[in-house]
Amino acid sequence: MSQVWSAPVRFAECDMQGIVFNAHYLVWADEALTPWWVEQGIDWSAYRGHQYVVVASTLEWRSSARHGDTVTVDAALEKLGRTSLTVRFEIRVGERLCCTVRTTYVCLSDGASTAWPDDLRARLAA
Amino acid sequence: MSQVWSAPVRFAECDMQGIVFNAHYLVWADEALTPWWVEQGIDWSAYRGHQYVVVASTLEWRSSARHGDTVTVDAALEKLGRTSLTVRFEIRVGERLCCTVRTTYVCLSDGASTAWPDDLRARLAA
Amino acid sequence: MSQVWSAPVRFAECDMQGIVFNAHYLVWADEALTPWWVEQGIDWSAYRGHQYVVVASTLEWRSSARHGDTVTVDAALEKLGRTSLTVRFEIRVGERLCCTVRTTYVCLSDGASTAWPDDLRARLAA
Amino acid sequence: MSQVWSAPVRFAECDMQGIVFNAHYLVWADEALTPWWVEQGIDWSAYRGHQYVVVASTLEWRSSARHGDTVTVDAALEKLGRTSLTVRFEIRVGERLCCTVRTTYVCLSDGASTAWPDDLRARLAA
Repeated sequence: MSQVWSAPVRFAECDMQGIVFNAHYLVWADEALTPWWVEQGIDWSAYRGHQYVVVASTLEWRSSARHGDTVTVDAALEKLGRTSLTVRFEIRVGERLCCTVRTTYVCLSDGASTAWPDDLRARLAA
Repeated sequence: MSQVWSAPVRFAECDMQGIVFNAHYLVWADEALTPWWVEQGIDWSAYRGHQYVVVASTLEWRSSARHGDTVTVDAALEKLGRTSLTVRFEIRVGERLCCTVRTTYVCLSDGASTAWPDDLRARLAA
Repeated sequence: MSQVWSAPVRFAECDMQGIVFNAHYLVWADEALTPWWVEQGIDWSAYRGHQYVVVASTLEWRSSARHGDTVTVDAALEKLGRTSLTVRFEIRVGERLCCTVRTTYVCLSDGASTAWPDDLRARLAA
Repeated sequence: MSQVWSAPVRFAECDMQGIVFNAHYLVWADEALTPWWVEQGIDWSAYRGHQYVVVASTLEWRSSARHGDTVTVDAALEKLGRTSLTVRFEIRVGERLCCTVRTTYVCLSDGASTAWPDDLRARLAA
């Protein structure tokens, strides 16, 4: 698991309770996906005709991020299926875990789910 | 299960793919919670000393909401534990299901998890 | 000037000071534009080849909207030029003015600024 | 004028037209204010009893920021009055100017507008 994204918490991301509003964790996990693909050596421009869509996300909060904090996102492959894969994102402030996001993506071709390309699968298994 | 919230999809909620960005479904479910409490006959101002926090959310997408659509949110109690409860939110455009959100809340008193007040539990069981 | 849009303030729109974060007023004014066009009898699907872009916005705050408030947006034509027009949006909670937004749009055709179509201009002058 | 803030454009900040939605420029300018105070040698924790509020913002767009771009924000004092001050924020992608934001703040003490503290004024004039 390695850090793929980081950002200072924005004032507009904090709510009346002084903590980051829950939906922003999903924004951060979404942003972290692109550098994670890059880190896996996967270049989506090489997979013309294939796309992926988000089908599910789960979020578990352990503690709150606040204005003044810088959040980091670590990402790792959680599960690789034939047509789906789940990435686990751990969002922290320093060592402290704030939220674990698990997002499941499905590979699409011509609008229908399809197996991940072999080359992509090989890179993820490496 | 009954409708507790509704809103037209905003232009700023749609992304480059022309569909609602995933984090906004969590915003809508969050907005739907307050009218759901009201519908259960639960007035949080009557529970001084008790609060609740979100500990987990699960989102499953079935189809996309788009600009021009009006989304509705139905809500129902999914599970009631001693100190936690899970509400299921079904977000639809017309009859079409877009996303099911399940959010788990924990009751707090003085910062520690505590059993839901008996009166609140009675109303939820009604 | 007439009311073209309204919405309850969302929890996620309020910041740590307990008031609506300033950028959301721009979101609301943006949402109010579409029903304002409709109210003027202007159907943009009739102007194929023409588009408009935002070139400037000015926001003046007088008071704050808060969670629990419902905001309304009144809109009126402020100024009509050859290729530009400015719409004034007054955002209120009840009678109380919170923010006046003035946004200037420029008419485009093939990516270049162009005069507003005569028919559209006639409707705005009506 | 010096750079005080920078961030990659987020996917969720882009709209159906593939460009950053206008309200996000206001979020970025707001984020840029805090490091600008720091750069002026102004520590707001030293001004107990004084606060400031935003009373107006103007935004002028010249070009669009897009996903994949990194935006930078330069900030400078535009105008210093007795109780108000205006900061100019220039938001760029590389050398290209996307948006100029001018925001006016008023100094408050006990909820009423008041002159900026002499020490703060001296630092801004330096």
